[in-house]
Amino acid sequence: MSVATRSIDDRRLRATFEALTTDGKTGEGGLNRPALSSAHLKARATFTELIAKEGFAKRTDGAGNLSAQWEAAGATASTLLLGSHLDSVPNGGRFDGALGVAAAFEVMQSLRDTGIAPRVNVEVIDFTDEEGTWVSLMGSRAFTGQLSAHDLDHPHGPPGAFDRALTRAALTREGILSAVRTDTSLRAFLELHIEQGPRLETRQTDIGIVSAMVGIFKYVVTFTGLANHAGTTPMDRRRDAAQGAAGFVLQVRQTVMREFPKCVANVGHLTLAPGAYNIVPETAACALELRAATESRAQELEAALRAAASEVAAQHNLKADFTFVQSVSPRAMDPALQSIFKSAADGLGLTSCSLLSLAGHDAQNMAARCPAGLIFVPSRDGVSHSSREFTRWEDCVSGCQTLFEAARRLVAHP
Amino acid sequence: MSVATRSIDDRRLRATFEALTTDGKTGEGGLNRPALSSAHLKARATFTELIAKEGFAKRTDGAGNLSAQWEAAGATASTLLLGSHLDSVPNGGRFDGALGVAAAFEVMQSLRDTGIAPRVNVEVIDFTDEEGTWVSLMGSRAFTGQLSAHDLDHPHGPPGAFDRALTRAALTREGILSAVRTDTSLRAFLELHIEQGPRLETRQTDIGIVSAMVGIFKYVVTFTGLANHAGTTPMDRRRDAAQGAAGFVLQVRQTVMREFPKCVANVGHLTLAPGAYNIVPETAACALELRAATESRAQELEAALRAAASEVAAQHNLKADFTFVQSVSPRAMDPALQSIFKSAADGLGLTSCSLLSLAGHDAQNMAARCPAGLIFVPSRDGVSHSSREFTRWEDCVSGCQTLFEAARRLVAHP
Repeated sequence: MSVATRSIDDRRLRATFEALTTDGKTGEGGLNRPALSSAHLKARATFTELIAKEGFAKRTDGAGNLSAQWEAAGATASTLLLGSHLDSVPNGGRFDGALGVAAAFEVMQSLRDTGIAPRVNVEVIDFTDEEGTWVSLMGSRAFTGQLSAHDLDHPHGPPGAFDRALTRAALTREGILSAVRTDTSLRAFLELHIEQGPRLETRQTDIGIVSAMVGIFKYVVTFTGLANHAGTTPMDRRRDAAQGAAGFVLQVRQTVMREFPKCVANVGHLTLAPGAYNIVPETAACALELRAATESRAQELEAALRAAASEVAAQHNLKADFTFVQSVSPRAMDPALQSIFKSAADGLGLTSCSLLSLAGHDAQNMAARCPAGLIFVPSRDGVSHSSREFTRWEDCVSGCQTLFEAARRLVAHP
Repeated sequence: MSVATRSIDDRRLRATFEALTTDGKTGEGGLNRPALSSAHLKARATFTELIAKEGFAKRTDGAGNLSAQWEAAGATASTLLLGSHLDSVPNGGRFDGALGVAAAFEVMQSLRDTGIAPRVNVEVIDFTDEEGTWVSLMGSRAFTGQLSAHDLDHPHGPPGAFDRALTRAALTREGILSAVRTDTSLRAFLELHIEQGPRLETRQTDIGIVSAMVGIFKYVVTFTGLANHAGTTPMDRRRDAAQGAAGFVLQVRQTVMREFPKCVANVGHLTLAPGAYNIVPETAACALELRAATESRAQELEAALRAAASEVAAQHNLKADFTFVQSVSPRAMDPALQSIFKSAADGLGLTSCSLLSLAGHDAQNMAARCPAGLIFVPSRDGVSHSSREFTRWEDCVSGCQTLFEAARRLVAHP
């Protein structure tokens, strides 16, 4: 190539994106490829073919993380890592993860096309199970040494299903735990992702530059009363656990909306037991998730909801148990990388703003290992994890251009 | 025996009750013998031994209903049927059903002991699956021809479990449907049962004479919103089905307590879907049961709750579906038998009152076939379907005496 590329090739980006969003495509136009499913493994095979076709080196690790490597600066140079994930939630959308891998790959190709010798190597990575079909953010946690045997012994899904998935993908628990990347000095990690929320669309802004990832805190809140005959027990003598759970579910929403406008909370699962038409529920277990930008804010919200649970329980003559299950700590993105993204967007004439990420991403794990940066592009109607998930193509291109400009600056310095 | 028995033999009643509440006894002192379980079939074997020991004839039918017959008045005479059930809910109490069978058996023995030739035959029956482990009130519905093949094709429990239970009990669907009793002219059906509620205890009354059984009406009320990311979807943009279900569960209780003091309602089961910590629930399905003394009152309550569901759905930008599942019609007990019970209790110096039954009982099915009467004895604290279920022994004896006096009057006339 005689003329240095000044920008990305949006037609090539489109072709890559189409190739990486074909396996597992649903009738509704979404993607159904939970981590390590046949469709997901097929998508990885497609990516592997693309890596070979473009003449990059392929690398995999014990956690199944799949990379394309361009050793442009020699074996002793550090590496700029770019990437996202090819897995999806069940019946998810096309853009969540796959756009980030396609954009990262386009950036590496475009960097090569510039003809300028970079001072760092470049690698594009597809992390395993970002969506937590089995173990939340498994690939990036394995890569950065933030995964334990305990985590792998408590996967999501029905008994045995994780083991069958590992067999299907030719992975082992030992292999996953051994996937910590120690032989690569990392200059930075950059990720492009769809926002999965409506803030950019509402503000009519092209690029969201993530300042920090919220912490995610999970609890089980259980109300306990007394199982009794639903015909013969007078209404005013019931100790109905469903009443406690119902009051609590409403309080969760009201408390967050009134007092914690920057947090979110969800009761996504609820089990009444014994669970029959004709038995007053003895227990009601609510799966509660809170998200907050700081540990201290999360603690304040937890305290408010603990008080709400106790109050509701007292109203209905129940006992409330508020049990912590697990958490992911809030994590700041690298300030220098935020500046580089801002300057890159400005240079392209794109509008940008600083955003808190309310979802978890692989970048939060990478931040424990090296400077990490994350940008968002708009999601139509804020919808994600759905076949209705959509990002306008010009927004995809703008995001990829911003990622390219940031990467170009980073590879210019060792 | 030379002297006619004037009353029942309470020590023999106690021995029978102990014998019939041994199989399936739990560590907590309750009974765990769901219909057609091994423990339940063992209890039936114990009852069969008792029938043989006392020299009564044993009869079984295709539904597994198990009877002791005393053909005292000849093959062409009509029959006074007495009884209840030996099955229990999972981890239920000792008195629910078993007391009624023991009391009925004692009454038949005592009638024989009187030495007076009755004008009708006497039969004590243990109905199959009163508790509806598989099919609600299955035995008495089969006995009275109120059961359909459709009912048997839609049993409760996991797939295949009912078939395994039938095999264990050597029953078949065809046999159950053929169990309609057509060769016996029935004088009346009498049942003694524990109240399973606190009204007799509260009123310090010995005997409850049931005027009617409430109708039982089952529905599934489903709220539908939109599944979305529980981190990135702002609280005020969620269409969270859990909020609808929660508001509805509270409204059900409040509506019944404020406007329908003689009815009861229960949401005993609730399913949120997809059902994960990090997904805003798209649907919430509530299993709703209403009980009312008349069809018209049930319709009024249903209308009020339909309105409440619509209102709650509108508040949270959801859709509400209110789907009828099944019902058991309210059923009056025979007025003449109520008078006989009242007079029997008065004669024994026992206090009595008229009560609506808020639970279903085999007597309601028998009422479709012959005059049916039902009396209650007090339940301590109103607790039932629990190992804490308890009735004082003197109350058990009082109930059995009342049943005996009523039966004695009935067998004196053809």
